[in-house]
Amino acid sequence: MNLEIVTIGDELLLGFTIDTNAAHLAREFAALGVRIVQRTTCGDDADAIAQAVREALERTGAVITTGGLGPTADDMTKPAIASIFGKGMVLNAEVLANLEQRWLTRFGHALPVSNRQQAMVPDGCTILPNRHGSAPGIWLEDDRGRWVVMLPGVPREMRGMLADTVVPYLRDRLPTDGPVIRSRTLRTANIAESALADRLGELARGVNGLPLAFLPGNDGVDLRLTSWSRPSRDAEAALTQAAALVREKVGRFIYGEGDDDLAALMLAECAMRGLTIAVAESCTGGMLGQRLTAIPGSSRTVQGGVIAYANEVKTRELDVPAEAIAEHGAVSDVVACAMAAGVRRRFGTGIGIGITGIAGPDGGTPDKPVGTVWVAVDVDGDVHAVRALLPGNRFEIRYRAAQLALDRLRRAFAREAGQDSVGWTSRG
Amino acid sequence: MNLEIVTIGDELLLGFTIDTNAAHLAREFAALGVRIVQRTTCGDDADAIAQAVREALERTGAVITTGGLGPTADDMTKPAIASIFGKGMVLNAEVLANLEQRWLTRFGHALPVSNRQQAMVPDGCTILPNRHGSAPGIWLEDDRGRWVVMLPGVPREMRGMLADTVVPYLRDRLPTDGPVIRSRTLRTANIAESALADRLGELARGVNGLPLAFLPGNDGVDLRLTSWSRPSRDAEAALTQAAALVREKVGRFIYGEGDDDLAALMLAECAMRGLTIAVAESCTGGMLGQRLTAIPGSSRTVQGGVIAYANEVKTRELDVPAEAIAEHGAVSDVVACAMAAGVRRRFGTGIGIGITGIAGPDGGTPDKPVGTVWVAVDVDGDVHAVRALLPGNRFEIRYRAAQLALDRLRRAFAREAGQDSVGWTSRG
Repeated sequence: MNLEIVTIGDELLLGFTIDTNAAHLAREFAALGVRIVQRTTCGDDADAIAQAVREALERTGAVITTGGLGPTADDMTKPAIASIFGKGMVLNAEVLANLEQRWLTRFGHALPVSNRQQAMVPDGCTILPNRHGSAPGIWLEDDRGRWVVMLPGVPREMRGMLADTVVPYLRDRLPTDGPVIRSRTLRTANIAESALADRLGELARGVNGLPLAFLPGNDGVDLRLTSWSRPSRDAEAALTQAAALVREKVGRFIYGEGDDDLAALMLAECAMRGLTIAVAESCTGGMLGQRLTAIPGSSRTVQGGVIAYANEVKTRELDVPAEAIAEHGAVSDVVACAMAAGVRRRFGTGIGIGITGIAGPDGGTPDKPVGTVWVAVDVDGDVHAVRALLPGNRFEIRYRAAQLALDRLRRAFAREAGQDSVGWTSRG
Repeated sequence: MNLEIVTIGDELLLGFTIDTNAAHLAREFAALGVRIVQRTTCGDDADAIAQAVREALERTGAVITTGGLGPTADDMTKPAIASIFGKGMVLNAEVLANLEQRWLTRFGHALPVSNRQQAMVPDGCTILPNRHGSAPGIWLEDDRGRWVVMLPGVPREMRGMLADTVVPYLRDRLPTDGPVIRSRTLRTANIAESALADRLGELARGVNGLPLAFLPGNDGVDLRLTSWSRPSRDAEAALTQAAALVREKVGRFIYGEGDDDLAALMLAECAMRGLTIAVAESCTGGMLGQRLTAIPGSSRTVQGGVIAYANEVKTRELDVPAEAIAEHGAVSDVVACAMAAGVRRRFGTGIGIGITGIAGPDGGTPDKPVGTVWVAVDVDGDVHAVRALLPGNRFEIRYRAAQLALDRLRRAFAREAGQDSVGWTSRG
C-alpha cells in the first residue's frame, strides 16, 4: 500500500514549529509495510489544502492529514477536504454531545458558541474517537476506495489516535503476510566510525544482503540494519541473524539496542550487583549525575556526588592532593583517579567515577588540547583511568565525556567477567 | 516573492530523520519577506524528484531543494532537476579540482573514482561554493526567470551555505522595502499561561494589531509578537513599541528575549557583581550545575557543588541537621535553606542555591505530591526559599526546578535593586 502525508499549518510553513508528526507517522507506517511516497506541507488556506490533498489522492489514493481540526477560524481542513469528495458539512450530534460534556467536566462551563464548529463534520464520514483531546479524527472514503484520514496536529493527540484507531484499522486492510520495512539498531560507544568499519570488514557494506548504516551521534556510533520488503516474520529473523554476525565482530563495543540508554543500563547493572555510585565531576559539571538521576528509582543506587569545578574543591571535598594537581595538572590520570577514589571513600559507595577535562572553547594547550579528558572508575578500590581526545563543541565534549565514563564502568564490569581487555592505565 | 521547498531523502520519508532543515529555511525566508507556500518531501528517486520539483516550479517559479547531492548512487537530485530544465550533465573542472584538493589535505589520499560524480553539474548552472563540506550547491535558472537552488542535506552545511550565498543573493533580488515577517519573543519564567493572560488583559488578544502567541515550554511561557507584511524598519519599530506595552504589564516576569538562556544571564550578572556560586542539588541531581557550567568561561564564577541525592549526603557534605530532615522531611523549606546556606559556607562563595523536591514518578504523598519542590537562594547570608508544585513528567519537573532556582536568583537581584516584592518565605 502506498500513502501520502499532508501536514497542515502556517506555523509549520513559517518554521515556528518543527514537524515531528511527519517522522512519527513515517516510522509507524514503515513498520506496518505501508510505503510513504511523498509528504506535503501547506498553510491554513482552504484552497491550498484542497489542492495538496487532491493531488496526493490522485497519486496514491490514500492520504493522512494532520492539523487544522481546531475550533479557530484558521482550522479549515474538514470543509476543504469535504469539497474534494463533493460532500457538504453537517452537525454531528454525538460529537457535539461529547464536546459539551468535555467542557462541563474539564472547564466547569458550557461549550462556547465558537467551539460548536468542531462538531461539524463532512457528510457521510466515519468519526474516529479522540481520547487525548477535543477534536475527533475523520475518515472520509469514496466509492472507488480512495480515502483521507484527518488527524489533529497536536503531537500527543495525533500519536494517541494513530495507535488507538488508524493503525489497527489499516492492519485489518493489509495482507497478513505483506512485505514490511523493519530495522534494528546496535549501539556502540567510544569507537570511531572508521575503526568500526575496519573491524567489520566486508560486513560494513551489508550483512546477508541487509544494508548497514553507520549513524554517528553523541552517544556513539549506532549501527542500523534494515530489512526491506520481507514479510514481518522473515524480516525479524533476518535482522536477528545479521545482528549476531555484527556482534561477532564488534560485540565488545556494543552496549545496547534500539533506544537503550547507557546510564539506565549501568544503573540496572549496579542495582543487580548491589553496588551504590557516587560521582566526582569537573568539566562535565553535573552532567553525569543528571543523567544517572534522570532514571526513575535511581535514588536506590546513586548516593550523589561532588561538582568539583574549582581546584580547591577537588582538594577540599575529594581529598585530591594539592601537590598532585600542581605536579600533573588538573587534567591528568593522577587527578582523575584521586577524584574517583576520593568520592567513593567520602560517600562510602561501591563505585566512584571521576571526570576531568578541557571542554573549551578556551583552556587548551599544545600538550592538552581542547577535548582532552581523563576518566577514572573505582570499583571497590580497583581504580583505572583512561584518556581520550573528544571531538566537537563544548556540549559535545562534555556529553561524550560522561558517556565515556559510563562506558568505562561497563568495561570494568565486563573485565571482571573476563570479557574485556582493552588498554587501561591501571593505578589500582 | 513566493517560494517552495522540496526536501529529498528516503531517510526523511522513513522517519529515520526529523526534517529540521525545513523549519530553518522557513524562518530565514520569512525574515527576508519571502513567503513559503508549500513544502514537499520525496524519496531518493529520480522520477519523484523531477515530478515534485516540476510541480513546485509551475506553482511558484522558485524552488529550494535540500539533499541528494552526495557521492552515492542514491544521490540523484542534480540530474533529475537538470532534466526538467532540458539540460545535460557536465564535468566541472573547478569543482573537481576543489574535491581533489579537499581529499588530499583532509584524508591524505587521492579522490576515489566514485566521488568524481560530485563534480558533475547541470550544463549552464551557477556553482555555489560550500565552505562547510564537499558538495557544492547548484543554482539553475531558465530564460523565463524560474529557478531552483540545490543545497546539501546535512544541516550544518545547508545552514552555512544559506547564510553565505543564498540569503545575500535573494536579498539583492528583493525590493529594498518589501514587506517582511518579523517576530520578537519575550521570555517569562515561573508564571502560568493563564496568570499571564489575566495580567495582560486586553493585550492578550493582540498588541497594537500585532498578534501575541503564548508558547509554554520547560523554560517558562514565551510571548511571541509577530509583525506581518510591513517593511522591515516599520516591523522592527512596531515590535519594539508592542514589546514595551507587554513589559509594562508583566515585565517583572520577563527574564530575556529571543534565545536568551537564564543560566547564562545569571552567570553574567554574578560575574558583574563579582559573586561566585555553589549549588546543592537533590532532586535535580546535577542539572543546575550542568546548566551553569555549559556556559564557556563559567569556571570564573562557578566553584562547584554537591549532588546530595541521599539524606546522609545532605547531612555529611552540607551540614543539614539530621533532626531537621527527620522533623520537616527532606523536601521542606528548612532543608532547602540549610542546603543553600551549607554549600555557600563550605565552598566559600557569595551565592548558594539549594533544590529539594519529588520528581516522581514515585515518592509522592497527599501532603507532598509528585512535583513538589522547595528552592532556596542564599545571597551573602540572606536566605530565602520558595515552594512550587511543578507539572510534567520526571524530566520536566527536574528541568523546571532548576529554572525556578535560577529565576529566584534573578528575583533576589531584582529585590536588592528594589524592583521585586513577590512572596518569599524568609529565613534570613
